[in-house]
Amino acid sequence: MSSELELKAVNTIRLLSVDAVSKANSGHPGAPMGMAPAAHALWTQMKFNPKNPEWINRDRFVLSNGHACALLYSLLHLFGYPLTLDDLKSFRQLGSKCPGHPEYETPGIEVTTGPLGQGICNAIGLAMAQAQFAATFNKPGFTLSDNYTYCFFGDGCMMEGVASEAMSLAGHLQLGNLIAFYDDNHISIDGDTNVAFTEDVAARLESYGWDMLYVKDADTDLNAISDAIAQAKKTSKPTCIKITTTIGYGSLLQGSHSVHGAPLKADDVKQLKKKWGFDPEKTFEVPQEVYDLYAKVGEAGAAAEAEWNTLLEKYTVEYPELGAELKRRLAGELPETFIKDLPVYSVDDDAVASRKLSEIVLSKIEKNLPELVGGSADLTGSNLTRWGAAVDFQPPSTGLGEYSGRYFRFGVREHGMGAIMNGFSAFGANYKVYGGTFLNFVSYAAGALRLSALSGHPVIWIATHDSIGLGEDGPTHQPIETLAHFRALPNLMVWRPADGNETSAAYLKAIESKHTPSVIALSRQNLPQLAGSSIEKAAKGGYVVYEASGDAQLILVSTGSEVAISIDGAKKLAEAGIPTTVVSMPDFHTFDKQSLEYRKSILPDGIPIMSVEVMSTAVWAKYSHVQFGINRFGASGKAPEIYKYFEFTPEGVASRGKKTVEFFKGSKLLSPLNTPFDSVTM
Amino acid sequence: MSSELELKAVNTIRLLSVDAVSKANSGHPGAPMGMAPAAHALWTQMKFNPKNPEWINRDRFVLSNGHACALLYSLLHLFGYPLTLDDLKSFRQLGSKCPGHPEYETPGIEVTTGPLGQGICNAIGLAMAQAQFAATFNKPGFTLSDNYTYCFFGDGCMMEGVASEAMSLAGHLQLGNLIAFYDDNHISIDGDTNVAFTEDVAARLESYGWDMLYVKDADTDLNAISDAIAQAKKTSKPTCIKITTTIGYGSLLQGSHSVHGAPLKADDVKQLKKKWGFDPEKTFEVPQEVYDLYAKVGEAGAAAEAEWNTLLEKYTVEYPELGAELKRRLAGELPETFIKDLPVYSVDDDAVASRKLSEIVLSKIEKNLPELVGGSADLTGSNLTRWGAAVDFQPPSTGLGEYSGRYFRFGVREHGMGAIMNGFSAFGANYKVYGGTFLNFVSYAAGALRLSALSGHPVIWIATHDSIGLGEDGPTHQPIETLAHFRALPNLMVWRPADGNETSAAYLKAIESKHTPSVIALSRQNLPQLAGSSIEKAAKGGYVVYEASGDAQLILVSTGSEVAISIDGAKKLAEAGIPTTVVSMPDFHTFDKQSLEYRKSILPDGIPIMSVEVMSTAVWAKYSHVQFGINRFGASGKAPEIYKYFEFTPEGVASRGKKTVEFFKGSKLLSPLNTPFDSVTM
Repeated sequence: MSSELELKAVNTIRLLSVDAVSKANSGHPGAPMGMAPAAHALWTQMKFNPKNPEWINRDRFVLSNGHACALLYSLLHLFGYPLTLDDLKSFRQLGSKCPGHPEYETPGIEVTTGPLGQGICNAIGLAMAQAQFAATFNKPGFTLSDNYTYCFFGDGCMMEGVASEAMSLAGHLQLGNLIAFYDDNHISIDGDTNVAFTEDVAARLESYGWDMLYVKDADTDLNAISDAIAQAKKTSKPTCIKITTTIGYGSLLQGSHSVHGAPLKADDVKQLKKKWGFDPEKTFEVPQEVYDLYAKVGEAGAAAEAEWNTLLEKYTVEYPELGAELKRRLAGELPETFIKDLPVYSVDDDAVASRKLSEIVLSKIEKNLPELVGGSADLTGSNLTRWGAAVDFQPPSTGLGEYSGRYFRFGVREHGMGAIMNGFSAFGANYKVYGGTFLNFVSYAAGALRLSALSGHPVIWIATHDSIGLGEDGPTHQPIETLAHFRALPNLMVWRPADGNETSAAYLKAIESKHTPSVIALSRQNLPQLAGSSIEKAAKGGYVVYEASGDAQLILVSTGSEVAISIDGAKKLAEAGIPTTVVSMPDFHTFDKQSLEYRKSILPDGIPIMSVEVMSTAVWAKYSHVQFGINRFGASGKAPEIYKYFEFTPEGVASRGKKTVEFFKGSKLLSPLNTPFDSVTM
Repeated sequence: MSSELELKAVNTIRLLSVDAVSKANSGHPGAPMGMAPAAHALWTQMKFNPKNPEWINRDRFVLSNGHACALLYSLLHLFGYPLTLDDLKSFRQLGSKCPGHPEYETPGIEVTTGPLGQGICNAIGLAMAQAQFAATFNKPGFTLSDNYTYCFFGDGCMMEGVASEAMSLAGHLQLGNLIAFYDDNHISIDGDTNVAFTEDVAARLESYGWDMLYVKDADTDLNAISDAIAQAKKTSKPTCIKITTTIGYGSLLQGSHSVHGAPLKADDVKQLKKKWGFDPEKTFEVPQEVYDLYAKVGEAGAAAEAEWNTLLEKYTVEYPELGAELKRRLAGELPETFIKDLPVYSVDDDAVASRKLSEIVLSKIEKNLPELVGGSADLTGSNLTRWGAAVDFQPPSTGLGEYSGRYFRFGVREHGMGAIMNGFSAFGANYKVYGGTFLNFVSYAAGALRLSALSGHPVIWIATHDSIGLGEDGPTHQPIETLAHFRALPNLMVWRPADGNETSAAYLKAIESKHTPSVIALSRQNLPQLAGSSIEKAAKGGYVVYEASGDAQLILVSTGSEVAISIDGAKKLAEAGIPTTVVSMPDFHTFDKQSLEYRKSILPDGIPIMSVEVMSTAVWAKYSHVQFGINRFGASGKAPEIYKYFEFTPEGVASRGKKTVEFFKGSKLLSPLNTPFDSVTM
């Protein structure tokens, strides 16, 4: 039986959520009202310290149905996180700590959610990280990591394909540290879920290798929920607790989709408050005994953290090396060795495909960088993402690896991989997570990549086969619009290195990054080492890689596999009496962060600038007066033949360079970097 | 028992595929060798006419594991489609009819596949279209439509989330006309599927509402495959026949991932040919009796089509109205009424959100346009995609609709919706298919949208909530990079109408389109009707919507909700002595198709041009000298406050316009439309 106080606490959560939505006159009251009992039962047994939301061994909670965030904000407030009633009152207003969907930057919010399906995948990433972390650092008598990851999700998440990908993998990985609650409320925006969603969710999850538990009346039966949680902790599989709830429980319109996405009517709110013993004239009312009840949870969490800190000190004595490593990682610092582990090339070194150069980087840096973990979406042999001695991250029972393994077999699941990486990165402990696929198929994960950038998870995409240069696989696999898309995303580095030094620079910046994710676009075909490149220069995002002999009459600006072609084109142009400089621009985002003075030294006034890249020209006018690119889909054939077909040869570059110089003869050209005002980037 | 001739036919398919891959020295021999028996058993009972691959009542075949396309090309050749042995010999070469993955334009190829997961969803779209078509036109004694849709798919497709979305919907929709073969070969690129994929596929499909059948030895047991097909045709659910095959069957390396994605060794090919009674020294050998065997299938198909044509003539007599409609649609013609059904607005009409204007268009045109079908990914009430009297497309047994219904409840499945639309469109009969979601979540479907553009399926995305103007839902829902991404995609119209006339123009072009898909970006907030707009002008993609009084010193170029703001900004600038013209540019793609003369009349030399749009500026330098946009993520709050915060107000536009004019004072400006050469668009 639930105590009166517990029921009051549940109703406080419900009413805070209702009041927040009503005050904003915008938002979703129904799901918070339905899920408040589960939230109460869960959070009162969770381990966390609201005074230090970053404690590495806290239990994680992810609200995958992020539109229900009034629930999460109410919980954070009631359990003592730094979120005030005034914050709740500013729900969904400009500048609020309580935006329309939960955002990572608010303390206590583990991941940004709202785009459906993402949160459950983030939770799976968090659970994978815990398993890897525990297997790496736990020792007999020193259980430094044993937290659980909990997740609420609804029908919407379950319909999204990204969830299918990650949930199947979670089953395969036997993530017993993951407990998810499926809010079976039968309502989505189009009405009853039976208009589109009549699958047997439980059978589906079981087919993935999950355990299922059921709470038939999760509107009132708190004990049943608690029992299910206790039961779920006992298994070595991920568990889903299917809770049958009434959306908008208590409202006069409960159980209908009218309570899903709009505030309750004023009368309805009043009858709710009266019914539950609250003052119908008051809003945002919190009985002191509810605060007191929940404060105990925070106090227990603080004590647990203190105990953990003591344990860590003992551990550091017993295992000085591992202890030091752990402390370094918790401080967010890279090992001093990192930079000098990066390979350096000179012009005499062999031509190598940049996907292979990437493999060399991984192989050189991994030893001193145990926080480096990653994998591929079933393209290991093509992406070259696995260093020789890597151990797979696998349940030991499979005989295929260990949980301490650092290589992930994601399966053909790009979107799931992206969302899992976000969760993994959000775990903390300085994890540097990467995922491999063909550049063209990073687009399958656009929803997750966007959230990496929005939340600032410094994950890394190893995106090989980065152009028409992949050859025979043809236009279905050849990126055209892809880099334009990614370069238009705020807070994303999009590296396309031209040789070995540039590949090292890309990894340098990607791994040093604390809040910006990276896509590293890599070639299938061999690329020569350039005389003019260096890690230091490339790490500025753009630099002169080939200087014109004499006053330049033309600047070519290029990336990746086209830089060497541009240099050869520049040599031809010089022969024809047009001294030409070549700028390599491996990452726009990093270049844009340099001083205007530096940038204008690279792309100065007075000289025509022509971009050279074998894909959409759409974003190149930012740095050039004229663009040479491919604004159509590619072709299937041998790579050199395709390059020739599209005229991406030294001759093709030179003839267009000549036309460009003639076209602008006599004009007073300004560098495109000159602008009368900054485009808004507040 | 399989006859000797049948086995010879199967081995001919295998060897043609092997030879094609060897000749190209690139491609995937393993899956064709494993799936040849199923292909033989299936194609010999399929109904199609290779002399007319467009016959509307043909059975459809989709190879979802498109990398196995050597199989498909072999079949098309052997069964008499216009694909010669020479074509097969040019497999994966530049200009070949047999590119690295199958492409829609090749006769007999129903949809482009290769990007995993798409094909099975296309097949579901094809099956939905058949159900809708049959329910619309079949009459007692006149079964004009009864074709099946068949699909081969493998582990890779099953891992992709997009397949999960569509397969769940297919189960819900009880598509008994869909029969899919799951190639359970246990191999993917990373090796044995047990490294990442240990779910119970059959149980999962059953949870979606599919029937499962099994063929345990699909390497040799042709009869078992045929029996399974016969059995599958009897049920009123989609059926999956799980066939256990040996990848690379017959090769010395059969069953290993070495035969997945690389040619067999020469010796291996020789032993194969010897073993199967072929000449080991010959390549591309086809026994005449195999041609003869397969010719019978085509002859039967031609006869069936002739019979069908006779039936159609009788039908036209019995049902003159429906018959005429059907003939019109088969001819790919729109009804004459279409254009005059489009609503026209004048400046005195109310301000209306463009999502609502879109609803008005749908409501006005649907009656005379029965080929217009569509739905929403669970955002019907927000996207406003359903006209008042619409009937849902549902299995009649649900009591929720009919198969003749034209409104789809896609569920929260954006990517699945996109891929289903492609299949639906590929069915023929002039179907105009649309799908609704928030603009930001079209990105979830990037993989399918790309294939719409690549294949030229003229589907329509109704993409509402198109900017920060959606307000409180915040940055997780506010597009920033989205239009830059879509505008960089070749062969895609991306409309962002500014008012009622422009919304009608967007639909005019989208529905008239035969080979170009459209995204129509629509506002949540109200937009005033503009004095200077008309359907005709907007249908050019860009036009002067507000003319400066006097010689313009500045041109503002804008789209959607920012056009009215720009006009108000222009009025302020005029007051300040800067006559300003405003260009509305609702679709770049359409504008680019106009003559240079027309385009330069809109964006002439000599006047500074400033773009105004509340999202990434990345692609705007193509049409402007200066860009005003938002190169960061948005914010949660009331829409008018967010617009003010980012300074997208008449004042904010005017102050930047002023700076732009000052900045370029004295410069001889060229229109950005001037270029020394065309960027490659061969």
